[in-house]
Amino acid sequence: MQTIKVHSRQREEMIEITSQVIDLLPRTGEGICFLFVQHTTCGVTVNESADPDVKHDILLFLRKKVPQVFEGFRHFENNSDAHIKASLIGPYAVIPFKDGKLLLGRWQGIFLCEFDGPRERSIILKIIT
Amino acid sequence: MQTIKVHSRQREEMIEITSQVIDLLPRTGEGICFLFVQHTTCGVTVNESADPDVKHDILLFLRKKVPQVFEGFRHFENNSDAHIKASLIGPYAVIPFKDGKLLLGRWQGIFLCEFDGPRERSIILKIIT
Amino acid sequence: MQTIKVHSRQREEMIEITSQVIDLLPRTGEGICFLFVQHTTCGVTVNESADPDVKHDILLFLRKKVPQVFEGFRHFENNSDAHIKASLIGPYAVIPFKDGKLLLGRWQGIFLCEFDGPRERSIILKIIT
Repeated sequence: MQTIKVHSRQREEMIEITSQVIDLLPRTGEGICFLFVQHTTCGVTVNESADPDVKHDILLFLRKKVPQVFEGFRHFENNSDAHIKASLIGPYAVIPFKDGKLLLGRWQGIFLCEFDGPRERSIILKIIT
Repeated sequence: MQTIKVHSRQREEMIEITSQVIDLLPRTGEGICFLFVQHTTCGVTVNESADPDVKHDILLFLRKKVPQVFEGFRHFENNSDAHIKASLIGPYAVIPFKDGKLLLGRWQGIFLCEFDGPRERSIILKIIT
Repeated sequence: MQTIKVHSRQREEMIEITSQVIDLLPRTGEGICFLFVQHTTCGVTVNESADPDVKHDILLFLRKKVPQVFEGFRHFENNSDAHIKASLIGPYAVIPFKDGKLLLGRWQGIFLCEFDGPRERSIILKIIT
């Protein structure tokens, strides 16, 4: 079990962590790499790493459709939108690897999705072979 | 492989199952705890367990944004909204554990998300070390 | 590690892959079957396989609520909606099995969710016992 630390700088941000994950893979053998964020207002996803406009558009859409102010919200911290986005995106990722490489598609990268930053975030990584 | 049973009492409800999951963990060793709901109108998520208003706000938002009546819906059971919410939240959870404890963050709990209750629900739990 | 290939025929489509997954399970023993799509504009989910209207309603709802044209989208490929849907549904599935059978509920099937087809898609399957 290992931990990846990420420092976000904005309220909403997708921060690529692909290279930190690769650094923690075993050099030989194959299996599944599990990621788990220990927080309730961020998530982890796999999406396009080539064009940063994809991150922009995902965050824009979620911000517009899951607004911070919404009639009926009760949670006193005023960040219910971040909790909702966290459960929609999910706090876990499950990615196959082989011989030190993630078996990602050509355009895929792994992203921490910050929805209530800036904060320091912890992601647990566990290898199962 | 073990099974957790949950009885929901309302159409939409988030029911915390963290303590039932902990009861089924091995006392020593580390690994991943898998949860899988055997249903198509509920899901399982990890989110805040401290303030119950978070559950309220998540369910309120999903109910408003994914309505039971929507132009064009065809499914005869009149619960397409529940099927959609189930796929958005997801039927699985993947949580690391060590020495009998889930490696959850300070505010995290595990919740069955009922979207078409009241019903009895089955969640399969499998430990991988 | 094995690969399932799927050919989609429309821009948006849910294609059931349950039988292809079952074909790749070991005949004895129990564990978890992992699926991972190597793409950023499709996902994989578990939902109802009995009534095809459920697929229709899920895709209809996502198409209406996550439109291809949305004010502020920047991504030059004009498929940001597909990237968003991919992260909402997720690129992974995690399903328990035993003695050659998936431990699915009565109504559950596994679906590739195509959001930017028609294309050939690859799904990696890994068994962990």
